[in-house]
Order: sequence, then C-alpha cells, then structure tokens
Amino acid sequence: MAMNLEERTLLIKKWVLEAGDKIQILLKNDLSVQQKSNRTDLVTNIDKEIEKYFVEKIRTYFPDELIFSEEGFGNTVTKLDGNIWYLDPIDGTTNFIMQQKNYAVMIAVYEDGVGQIGMIYDVYNNKLYEATKGRGAWVNGEKISQPKNISMRNGLLALNSQIIFRKEFETHRNLGNESLGVRMIGSAGLEMMEVLQGRTALYLASSLEPWDFAPALILIAETGLVTRNFDGMAIDLLNKQSFACGTPQSIKDFLGYLEKKRLQ
Amino acid sequence: MAMNLEERTLLIKKWVLEAGDKIQILLKNDLSVQQKSNRTDLVTNIDKEIEKYFVEKIRTYFPDELIFSEEGFGNTVTKLDGNIWYLDPIDGTTNFIMQQKNYAVMIAVYEDGVGQIGMIYDVYNNKLYEATKGRGAWVNGEKISQPKNISMRNGLLALNSQIIFRKEFETHRNLGNESLGVRMIGSAGLEMMEVLQGRTALYLASSLEPWDFAPALILIAETGLVTRNFDGMAIDLLNKQSFACGTPQSIKDFLGYLEKKRLQ
Repeated sequence: MAMNLEERTLLIKKWVLEAGDKIQILLKNDLSVQQKSNRTDLVTNIDKEIEKYFVEKIRTYFPDELIFSEEGFGNTVTKLDGNIWYLDPIDGTTNFIMQQKNYAVMIAVYEDGVGQIGMIYDVYNNKLYEATKGRGAWVNGEKISQPKNISMRNGLLALNSQIIFRKEFETHRNLGNESLGVRMIGSAGLEMMEVLQGRTALYLASSLEPWDFAPALILIAETGLVTRNFDGMAIDLLNKQSFACGTPQSIKDFLGYLEKKRLQ
Repeated sequence: MAMNLEERTLLIKKWVLEAGDKIQILLKNDLSVQQKSNRTDLVTNIDKEIEKYFVEKIRTYFPDELIFSEEGFGNTVTKLDGNIWYLDPIDGTTNFIMQQKNYAVMIAVYEDGVGQIGMIYDVYNNKLYEATKGRGAWVNGEKISQPKNISMRNGLLALNSQIIFRKEFETHRNLGNESLGVRMIGSAGLEMMEVLQGRTALYLASSLEPWDFAPALILIAETGLVTRNFDGMAIDLLNKQSFACGTPQSIKDFLGYLEKKRLQ
C-alpha cells in the first residue's frame, strides 16, 4: 500500500486516539499487574492489549516494517535501515496503576534513522502531542513555539527515580541545587512534553529504552531543543542509555557542571 | 456578625473561586517576580494581590480574627486561642511562574487549634478540595473516600526539592528505593491532595510553614491519613517544621526506616 507522510500521519492519529478510548474502557474493568525485571518494573494486561492492538494494525497496513516495542510483541531490531516503528503502549505504567493519570500512549516512525512521525497521547488530559518531520510540533492542533533558551539556574529540573537514590548519580541530583527546583512526573514522554512547552529547562533520566524517547525526539527536533546522553554524545536509537533533554543552554550547563565536578 | 460553620464555608468558597478567577485574569497581564529569602524563594505581584484580597475580606467580615499568612499582610500569630485564619494565596509559586499550573489557592480556619474549614483550589484544573470538620473531604462536590492503607513498598513517594540534594536528607531520599518510585509536583498542598486520593502513599517535606499545611490537615483528618514531623511528633500549628503525610502504614514504614538507619 503506497501512502504518503500525511496519510500515514492521519492513520496513526486515528489508531492513537482509538487506543486512548480502549484504555479508558479497559480501566473500568479489572487491572492485573505483573512484575517484569524487578519489583518496580511493572506491566498490566492493558499495556499488553494496547501493544497487540498497534502491532496488529501495523502488520496489516505495513507488513514489511519492523516494530521496536516495549512489551515483546514487536521484532528484534538491530539496525536502522528502512522504516522502523517505536511503540510504548503505556509510558508511565506505574502512574497508570497508581494514579490513572500521568501516563501516555507513544508511537513513532523512523526512516533510515531519521524521525518522520512522532505522537504522544496524554490520555487523562486528552492532549495529543504530534510532529511530522519539518512541519513543527503541535498539541491538539495548536503549534508549539520554540521555548525560551533558559539556563539551569532559571529553570526547573526533572529527574527519574533512580537518580534520586543511586550512589553514582549524586552529581546529577545535586544539580537540583543549581536550578529553581526539582520536579518528577514519572513518564519520560510527558517529562519531555513539559520541556517542549518551556515548563521544565532540563530532563535527566539514568536509563531509557529507545521506545521511551523515540517519539519525543521528533517533537524535540522540531522545537530547537537538544538531547544528549550523560557523556555528552548523541542519542543512539538502538540501545538503552542515559538521557538528557533540554534547552541548548541547560544542556550546556549540565555537561559543564558534570565536567567541573569530575575535575574537583 | 454571627455566622454558623455552613455560612462561613459558603462565604470562603465564594472568595476562593473569585481568587481563582482573579489569578487567571491577572496572568494575562505582566507577571513580576521578586526574590524573598534566597534565589529560589520567589514571590510575584499576583501572590501579593491575592493575599491582600483575602485579608481585606477577612478583616471586613471577621475583624477580630487573626490571619497567619505567607506574604506579610496578615498578623503575627503566637498562640492558637480563638479563630485563626491560615492563608497561602499561591502555594507552588515557582510552578505558577514557570508552568502556570501545579499551584493552588489555600485557606483554612482553625478554632482554638482545631481545624474547622480547609480549602485548596487547584486553579489550572478547576478542582476545589474542601473539608468542614466532621463532614468529610470533598472535591468538586464529590466525596473523597478513605484511601487504601498502602505500604511504602506498594506506593509512590513524594518529596520536596531540598530532600533531593541536601546532605542531611540522604536517608529520606533513599526511602525512594523502598517505594514504587519518587514523584514531585512542587506544591505542598497539591502533593497532599494526591495522598488524599490514594495516588501517593507518602509525602515528605524538609520544612513547611503553617500556611503550607494547615488547610490540607483538615482534609487529611477527614480521610484517616496521618501527619507527623520527621521526629515522629504531632504537627505544630505555629512553627516551621519537617513534615510527613501519608497512609497510616506508610508513616509507620517511614519512621521505622529512619529508626533502622539510625541504629546501623
């Protein structure tokens, strides 16, 4: 099936909104929770059901394209050639279980490693963030303008939980003292949508998987924000890694702070 | 002016909703920000204007009653006798400045140290949390039922920024590793409303002023939650102090964890 970028965007948007509806209906029934790699790494029947829903759709419409997804119904992806889908049916599963808010449906398509379409759907607040390459980032039909290039000192810092208590991240959490304060939502996608809208200067995560950041990266690229790993290198779309996303100035402040502390 | 509890509640509710409207109108004009005690302790022209609005109302209707408030237009309160008002015109001022959400208008009336009426208005989400002594806690007319008595291990932990980077709170932030994860909104009132609704098991703040917690305490008392300072003592309504609020089990877990670490 031949389909241009615009048609593909419309189709994905339909799936994402339908997935949001499904989640809200499924939430009225039983939620069953299982542990994955450890006690705090959780998955529900709904995560799985929504991933299966997307995988089935993608395999029907785009049978030759690979799927890089969280819950195991996709493919093993080892190179970036061709069209690749990134899929996180529910980003922020712990929030989904405990709060029934602060979670998002996330999906993206990349072509030869270049982001084409990214969508993040904040189901509870009914906010759909989307970007198509070269056409800007949007939320519910409103264009998101480039956020002010605020410094770490004049902005908020978002962190993930591991940074709070793991020994090796002392410097990273101490950066909080150089900021206006620390905030934590608990969904990588939604943390980055706060950066996108100028509400957070910098978001740091000790470790993210490609499906955690691939959709947001496309929105980020459209609004002049910067991403790096904790070594200051470009983000790798195939592997788990440390992750920083922020205004150009806050990323500079962060990497400079790490360097200063290393030399002390 | 003689006024029963119900009439007083209605009057305060009218003021609070009017304050919310005022804030949203004022936000469309210039926001001017000033530093108070330090670089991250901020106040705006709107905080001051809203405090003045409440103080004028209270002094008109209840000229004999003292006001314990954040921005300096109230009284010096040194004892709990009689009716005392607690007023925080905008709790979460940094969020108000940076995000224009995640802040709240907070007001309470105590009689001889016993909470009578508490209101917390999440203006951005148009959610009014309220409690009148003995009549339960409510949000937008819906009764809030007692949250499940979850343990620290089965719930989320909310912290304030100082706990993240100050040396003396290492044990407190390490409690994050005993929980399902750390979350931080950046408004004491709204953090406690999450505990109230069963979305967070425990909230810890290194230091809060009476106006930061007095309104929430009334809602908390109506829903079977527990508050303590970090020494396990009851909260003092006249002074700044460390503050913990959570399910009975999570408070027990927290104090037990502190004790265990002290003995190690």
